[in-house]
Amino acid sequence: MNPTGWGDAAAATALPDAARGLIEMVFGLDDRPATTSVELPAPGLAPELLDGLRDLLGAEHVRTDDETRRLRTRGKSTPDLLKARAGDLSDAPDAVVRPGTHDDVTALLAYAVEHHLAVVPFGGGTSVTGGLAARREGYAGLLSLDLIRMKRLLAVDHESMTATLEPGLRGPEAEALLAAEGLTLGHYPQSFEYASIGGFAATRSSGQSSAGYGRFDALVVGLTVATPQGELTLGSAPANAAGPDLRQLVLGSEGAFGVITSVTVRVRRLPAVKVYEGWRWPSFDDGAAAMRTLAQAGLLPTVIRLSDESETAINLARPDEIGGESAGGCMMITGYEGEQEAVDAKRAAVTAVLTGLGGDPLGEEPGRSWAHGRFNAPYLRDALLDVGVLVETLETATFWSNRDRLYADVKAALTASLGEGTIVLCHISHVYETGCSLYFTVAAKEGADPLAQWQVAKAAASDAMIGAGATITHHHAVGTDHKPWFAQEIGPVGVSILRAVKADLDPTGILNPGVMVP
Amino acid sequence: MNPTGWGDAAAATALPDAARGLIEMVFGLDDRPATTSVELPAPGLAPELLDGLRDLLGAEHVRTDDETRRLRTRGKSTPDLLKARAGDLSDAPDAVVRPGTHDDVTALLAYAVEHHLAVVPFGGGTSVTGGLAARREGYAGLLSLDLIRMKRLLAVDHESMTATLEPGLRGPEAEALLAAEGLTLGHYPQSFEYASIGGFAATRSSGQSSAGYGRFDALVVGLTVATPQGELTLGSAPANAAGPDLRQLVLGSEGAFGVITSVTVRVRRLPAVKVYEGWRWPSFDDGAAAMRTLAQAGLLPTVIRLSDESETAINLARPDEIGGESAGGCMMITGYEGEQEAVDAKRAAVTAVLTGLGGDPLGEEPGRSWAHGRFNAPYLRDALLDVGVLVETLETATFWSNRDRLYADVKAALTASLGEGTIVLCHISHVYETGCSLYFTVAAKEGADPLAQWQVAKAAASDAMIGAGATITHHHAVGTDHKPWFAQEIGPVGVSILRAVKADLDPTGILNPGVMVP
Repeated sequence: MNPTGWGDAAAATALPDAARGLIEMVFGLDDRPATTSVELPAPGLAPELLDGLRDLLGAEHVRTDDETRRLRTRGKSTPDLLKARAGDLSDAPDAVVRPGTHDDVTALLAYAVEHHLAVVPFGGGTSVTGGLAARREGYAGLLSLDLIRMKRLLAVDHESMTATLEPGLRGPEAEALLAAEGLTLGHYPQSFEYASIGGFAATRSSGQSSAGYGRFDALVVGLTVATPQGELTLGSAPANAAGPDLRQLVLGSEGAFGVITSVTVRVRRLPAVKVYEGWRWPSFDDGAAAMRTLAQAGLLPTVIRLSDESETAINLARPDEIGGESAGGCMMITGYEGEQEAVDAKRAAVTAVLTGLGGDPLGEEPGRSWAHGRFNAPYLRDALLDVGVLVETLETATFWSNRDRLYADVKAALTASLGEGTIVLCHISHVYETGCSLYFTVAAKEGADPLAQWQVAKAAASDAMIGAGATITHHHAVGTDHKPWFAQEIGPVGVSILRAVKADLDPTGILNPGVMVP
Repeated sequence: MNPTGWGDAAAATALPDAARGLIEMVFGLDDRPATTSVELPAPGLAPELLDGLRDLLGAEHVRTDDETRRLRTRGKSTPDLLKARAGDLSDAPDAVVRPGTHDDVTALLAYAVEHHLAVVPFGGGTSVTGGLAARREGYAGLLSLDLIRMKRLLAVDHESMTATLEPGLRGPEAEALLAAEGLTLGHYPQSFEYASIGGFAATRSSGQSSAGYGRFDALVVGLTVATPQGELTLGSAPANAAGPDLRQLVLGSEGAFGVITSVTVRVRRLPAVKVYEGWRWPSFDDGAAAMRTLAQAGLLPTVIRLSDESETAINLARPDEIGGESAGGCMMITGYEGEQEAVDAKRAAVTAVLTGLGGDPLGEEPGRSWAHGRFNAPYLRDALLDVGVLVETLETATFWSNRDRLYADVKAALTASLGEGTIVLCHISHVYETGCSLYFTVAAKEGADPLAQWQVAKAAASDAMIGAGATITHHHAVGTDHKPWFAQEIGPVGVSILRAVKADLDPTGILNPGVMVP
């Protein structure tokens, strides 16, 4: 992906007319095109080191051309895009290296330790928390360890319903390989089209269908990790009592403890039926209470999300109609995937509960609209940045009894920071028996320094999250951006544990320096 | 509990006549009464250290009398009982200290660090893997840190359906406190009557109803831990992507990383209905395939267990009738707990699947028999040891496609080690989408040195588990007994991580020395 925007430039979506009208009315239109033909810093790696890498992997798997380096620069947060749009590609790696196997990765790490090269594992490049912006000071160079060659389906166990995948597989590639076996992973984050299996694991990803299929960390039954200290292979059973669950220490480790070289996941049979539908609720509170009832009754659909009044008003859950007319209240999307009989039974049970609680069934049209546009939002952001609208998302999670406070506090913090006229939208994207996530979308008129403008607002929102006792992130990982708040969330003893593990596995600190570990 | 047997001596169960007849026929009866009035080693703690502890906690909370020390000696494995029955109580603590609060624990740990005292957290004392047999060499003394005073229900959140419990609460005590709030934890391991909340967490316990309520590690949403380095408080949300899940590093840490001083768990409403029933299957394979079908269809009852042919033949799932006539095949117990409507719906759906797969429904009588005797087995072991029968259990877990091999290998290893006539029984006690646990019960005629006899057999079975790629324990933790195999299971890099965490949190190594960390 180009560092200035999301996805395939050919697939870029223009701002829908209604949205453009809304934006013009609220913020005015202010053309801010991205700077083109940005110069990359010259690759700073000594020739003998490049030769050594070429000896290790083959010359064709060590790239230093500008185009390859450009495409491996940073991730996809709005700050990342703003920097690139302003012509700053200073985080470009010195070289992009492409190991083909676990042993290649091991050899590469040994070489990196020997020559003190920083190594940033790269899967889909979709980090929105600075997970690819490693510290380079003090290193002999910075390598992007691109997993693009590691895209095999290594094993399928139809009896145990597990599959072993290589980390470089992107969402659609993994699903295609599994579909040929009649299987699915069912993991659909908004970044699905680009994000990778290794990234899902390294960041504890959660997807739009996680109510039904489970968060990615719940899907993983086994892992292989290459570390500077050797191989770590975990996954002797679905669950066990053999000490702490070290799988859960690798999940969320963001390349700072090692490079995940294979992931064994629980899979499901490809669903025969997929159906999504809409419900309208009088208020966010009413819809949230209904979600809680379903979760605590063990009656969750495969997909469930609820927009607040603001998000419903501008139709964010129906990307083709953003800015168009809305009938008010709060829009909920429910979805069911599986065998016809199971879908029918679950849908009937959920429908009975939601109807009984005062939900207004809207049929399948809103569900189809949501499903059609479910991966489009990042393209819309590009179009908004083009017209001078600062737009970004952030998310958190808490227990049900704290939801209302968290919602109010984050919203207030964002509005206070970004000023009158700021649009703050929210939806509940994931639910549990004990709580839920809150996903905010924020839009404001760009000031003179939109990067600084956003950083202040993000800090205020982050303070509000930690102040409310919630998490700094439900499904976007720590990266570099969340570290100060992550340190508060887990406290000094938690930080000390992570540093100890880091020092043990990566004593010279070559792995994604500055990422995740506070 | 007395170190020579299970539970309350007054509740001890004599061997049922049918079982006695069976034992007499197979092994002969060989009276081996436990040695009585065993001398404890004199408490080896310097008087000034005892004074210091009394200053810290109050004199009444520092006990050195023989009776208190005796009741805190070792756990409840058959080796533990054999040692105590032979008069060996050499692992008795020098003193039993009883902190009342988190701050007491913190102060105690600081004192223990200062004076290099080994500290063994004690909850219910039901470890079956040597988790209470810490190394004492090199320490100024060994303290049993008894959590008996920390038995409060600290908080209940009815909206989020969570409760915060102190670690010293035993199973029935926790359930009674929650029942007063209309809630339940639903965690019923066989040790339920004695095992504690802290122990459930520290050992990743799994219970007889875990198919419905979840393993204990899945119930925990938050933890407070006192460590020599300070307090660790975790649990900002039901789930998050804020780095590795450190809760899963505390769960299974067996007192080696810190003392768990509170646990916040997901709770459920007290079930209106509890119903258990029996099914007969032609073979273990048929029954296991049916379990797999249910798990992979998302249709698990609250309780599901399946005895193999041998276990069915002697009625182990129906403790009142052990040794009595059996109709053959394999006995499955299914149980449903919840609201009447949900129970009816789930039961109907499960019944349709099981009937379709060839299961023979036996109605509620076998279910009642199982439920009535579900916590009795440890008493039976005492009665068997009295008549010279060596009896013990061990358990493991694996993925479905490996179940048959694991079953055969462990059974063969035990039989080869213990010789002709050995009885090896097995049931599947816990099921997942991707696999299941296997729980073995072994009985053999005691030789001259039953402890050595069992240690050889246990090593052979453990080798078979690791050889088959399975886990050394599905729900009994590592303790001291499983360490060599645990080290193989997680490999040298996994071991190195645990040592690094241990060194970070407990640099002087006072916490449960020699337990869990290989």
